[in-house]
Amino acid sequence: MVKTDIKIAQEATMLPVTKVAEKIGLDEDQFELYGKYKAKIEVEKITADKKGKVILVTAITPTPAGEGKTTTVVGLGDALNRIGKDAIIALREPSLGPVFGIKGGAAGGGYAQVVPMEDINLHFTGDFHAIGAANNLLAAIIDNHIFQGNELGIDNRRITWKRVVDMNDRQLRHVVDGLGARVNGVPREDGFEITVASEIMAILCLSNDIENLKTNLGNIIIGYTYDNQPVTARELNAQGAMTALLKEAIKPNLVQTLENNPALIHGGPFANIAHGCNSVIATNAARKLADYVVTEGGFGADLGAEKFIDIKCRKSGIRPSAVVVVATVRALKMHGGVPKNQLGDENIAALTAGLPNLLKHIENTTTVFGLPTVVAINKFPTDTDAELDLVKKECQKRNVNVVLSDVWANGGAGGEELAKEVVRLSEQENHFSFAYPDELSIKEKISAIVEKVYGGSAVRYDPIAEREITKLEKLGFGHLPICMAKTQYSLSDDQTKLGRPTDFTITISNIKISAGAGFIVAYTGTVMTMPGLPKKAAYEKIDVDSDGKIVGLF
Amino acid sequence: MVKTDIKIAQEATMLPVTKVAEKIGLDEDQFELYGKYKAKIEVEKITADKKGKVILVTAITPTPAGEGKTTTVVGLGDALNRIGKDAIIALREPSLGPVFGIKGGAAGGGYAQVVPMEDINLHFTGDFHAIGAANNLLAAIIDNHIFQGNELGIDNRRITWKRVVDMNDRQLRHVVDGLGARVNGVPREDGFEITVASEIMAILCLSNDIENLKTNLGNIIIGYTYDNQPVTARELNAQGAMTALLKEAIKPNLVQTLENNPALIHGGPFANIAHGCNSVIATNAARKLADYVVTEGGFGADLGAEKFIDIKCRKSGIRPSAVVVVATVRALKMHGGVPKNQLGDENIAALTAGLPNLLKHIENTTTVFGLPTVVAINKFPTDTDAELDLVKKECQKRNVNVVLSDVWANGGAGGEELAKEVVRLSEQENHFSFAYPDELSIKEKISAIVEKVYGGSAVRYDPIAEREITKLEKLGFGHLPICMAKTQYSLSDDQTKLGRPTDFTITISNIKISAGAGFIVAYTGTVMTMPGLPKKAAYEKIDVDSDGKIVGLF
Repeated sequence: MVKTDIKIAQEATMLPVTKVAEKIGLDEDQFELYGKYKAKIEVEKITADKKGKVILVTAITPTPAGEGKTTTVVGLGDALNRIGKDAIIALREPSLGPVFGIKGGAAGGGYAQVVPMEDINLHFTGDFHAIGAANNLLAAIIDNHIFQGNELGIDNRRITWKRVVDMNDRQLRHVVDGLGARVNGVPREDGFEITVASEIMAILCLSNDIENLKTNLGNIIIGYTYDNQPVTARELNAQGAMTALLKEAIKPNLVQTLENNPALIHGGPFANIAHGCNSVIATNAARKLADYVVTEGGFGADLGAEKFIDIKCRKSGIRPSAVVVVATVRALKMHGGVPKNQLGDENIAALTAGLPNLLKHIENTTTVFGLPTVVAINKFPTDTDAELDLVKKECQKRNVNVVLSDVWANGGAGGEELAKEVVRLSEQENHFSFAYPDELSIKEKISAIVEKVYGGSAVRYDPIAEREITKLEKLGFGHLPICMAKTQYSLSDDQTKLGRPTDFTITISNIKISAGAGFIVAYTGTVMTMPGLPKKAAYEKIDVDSDGKIVGLF
Repeated sequence: MVKTDIKIAQEATMLPVTKVAEKIGLDEDQFELYGKYKAKIEVEKITADKKGKVILVTAITPTPAGEGKTTTVVGLGDALNRIGKDAIIALREPSLGPVFGIKGGAAGGGYAQVVPMEDINLHFTGDFHAIGAANNLLAAIIDNHIFQGNELGIDNRRITWKRVVDMNDRQLRHVVDGLGARVNGVPREDGFEITVASEIMAILCLSNDIENLKTNLGNIIIGYTYDNQPVTARELNAQGAMTALLKEAIKPNLVQTLENNPALIHGGPFANIAHGCNSVIATNAARKLADYVVTEGGFGADLGAEKFIDIKCRKSGIRPSAVVVVATVRALKMHGGVPKNQLGDENIAALTAGLPNLLKHIENTTTVFGLPTVVAINKFPTDTDAELDLVKKECQKRNVNVVLSDVWANGGAGGEELAKEVVRLSEQENHFSFAYPDELSIKEKISAIVEKVYGGSAVRYDPIAEREITKLEKLGFGHLPICMAKTQYSLSDDQTKLGRPTDFTITISNIKISAGAGFIVAYTGTVMTMPGLPKKAAYEKIDVDSDGKIVGLF
């Protein structure tokens, strides 16, 4: 019988986190303990400056077959340490909502996990709760301002700031609040998002330090006045108290892998309406403390890698030295049209049809972004030699090597070959490039992403998006990078188009400014910012046994 | 210039909490660090069993003049340690909402504070966030159950379980949610409470251990079916996942006073619709670790002491050895009808008129509850000898000594006389008694509280309350203790009746079962379970300075 993730995690022998900190040269005054196996790093006290190389792990367009991106990050980190390199992994924190919904935990899998996995999946060091509190303080301040006389003239039909809970709770998507009596506020349409979708999450992940955080929080646009002027959090004098709430949350969290190697886990912005990468502060801290930093971007490379580069790298100065594109033969066959229950059979035709998805992603990482790239195939017992050879051959034609990875079953030992290729690539010449320069117009930037990265042919704008673009450029936000909100299941904006679609048009349905985080969100279709619980949800299995141990968490 | 609380707190020399733990005989494996100055105690690993005496600090009926109950607890704890006794204080955790509203922090004041006060007031060790998450998980599960087919037949007009945020946010008191589309749930009237008002907070504070917590969570009644049957959290299979969320929150938090004495701060149930005392687990842990445990009940003694005894003591077996009733001459003059701006003048007539408020409270603690009692007068420079003599004389007629306390200005040194009196009292004979036995009917219990404790003459029931009583007794809940939800500003249910009102009737407007916490809430009038922010709110002053230090928190 295959062991569950939580069983493997609970059987692990963890080092006290003080020992993990010691390994990376942190003195006692450079971190604070949160229990025996978690710590927060005081980044401004770090004296080391190793200028670690950043390895970005991304993936093909996701399918229900699963690719294993986080698992690969963990396994690659362990493998680098195994081959004698000094490596830290830098991951995102899981969101509490999905833990109780369909997805379950998000701390890697099999023998490539970060631990203590129960803590990481539940509350962790409280960062997301702090973000939720700061978000909801601002919301309370907005409605209180209106209730107390509305000096700023905020139009209560045009408040864009929403409240959050870290829970999958569809009932809160659309509400009317302020009801019941004059003392209960001013009635208006409103709605809730899940905490990871809060702009504060994106801000926390893109800020360089606490001063910068406060400035960015002050820049948040919460809505518009009756005169169509944007209203900022600064005008409500909210940024100081919000910063106070985030004072500890901004410090990166140190934990360890199953193989006792250091892992920084910090931040987790929604990969859809935000940029979906862990925090700049954590990545930079890791770069000071190790020679290699392995990190990831959310979803496939069209979203995750693009946003990592065009948003996170642009704002932070971070430059990746190599890219790992994770794929599985099974997932590529799904892209070639095979249903999930037939993935066990060899199918060269389907693989040939699906492979262009992978090839487009590596074309992007090598040609558009100019980065040395390797494809990591997470091995399944049903993969045949003919299938693997086909993948290798096609990738090699594009000067990209394919390496088999087995970290789920074997931990770091299953990723040594991948680690060696990553080391080799990161010593190669690097032609890092953004998909677009700052100074292009909003529409030109969107076109650059659609044509160069997605491989589409045109962009269409709904009238409301046109109006927003005009408004935002007039307000002086035209120079900001674009954060595309697009389905992760296709290179196009139509999730039924698998593989490598061509000649498609992307429709921009709306545009929204995240002035605090410093990007413009371009929506293709509607994006759900509050998930719901499924009929059979993960919470039903989660429990605490008579020894006080958590069970049923995946 | 008088120093602010936060300035005094930040100038304190704190011991590492490991040293504080060492002082009370805790080994390294008996606690977990949360930073350098906070720890969570693993209560089941404590081997000591000192059977500490519990000292309950309560107060006269509160006035806007302020009494200083928490400050007295802190100062008394320090004073006991100063006179060579081994004492721990056991307090409630502050709620985040009021910190940004009118009230500000809640960690004592002046030179009688618990530290680190910024941490204690903001997030602390995340307990309230965990309670909020568990509360909102249950809410999401309820609406998801209805959305997915409503197998249990929950009547969505009769769901009593509300969502919470730890924020003063009047806009959320009354909402309609589930709007917008079929996929967004089922539209219904709903509302939010502040986290401290969650029944889960009360449950956490009344549970003996994690198994008991899970049982109690399962017992929560979330509403009723179309057939008028109660629906429990257990029927929704929610109690396991909720317990997992509360696994760390149930562990008491160890911090220190300004004088480096140990303080357990844990739980903070709404003193109105719940019992308003810190957790049974923390009080019991403190009793194992010290000879004296100083703790408090919310609001005046009619509410705080009554609920401490009739709910917390009844459920836990804890028995206080002595009671401190905190008063100020200024507040007693307010009870005698003097407005706040004239409290500086000697006024024997007003004091004579207001004094019966104090006398009724000490009559209750000595006669109704049978406990040795001392009155602690928090000294103000404007108090005259004639005023103080009058208070002393009237109290001594009832065999209660009055001790002046100066802990706000002088810390533990200002409370030594009080400490000595407390030690003396706690060695006296104790005639502990509840206000009523379990087996009385709901109405008989309410009458006992109203007549014996409040000094009222009758109870009137609104029809809805009558119906609920009949229903709850039929459902078998008649044996539970009563938790009165009454204004704290009067012994009666009319907050304009100061001093010691007599011959009044209490009106019970509604009755609600908290089946998880194990009590019946009797409402007198409407009780606000979600505060709002004032026009000039505390958040505007709270900030983080350029050294990363929090400022403006009171």
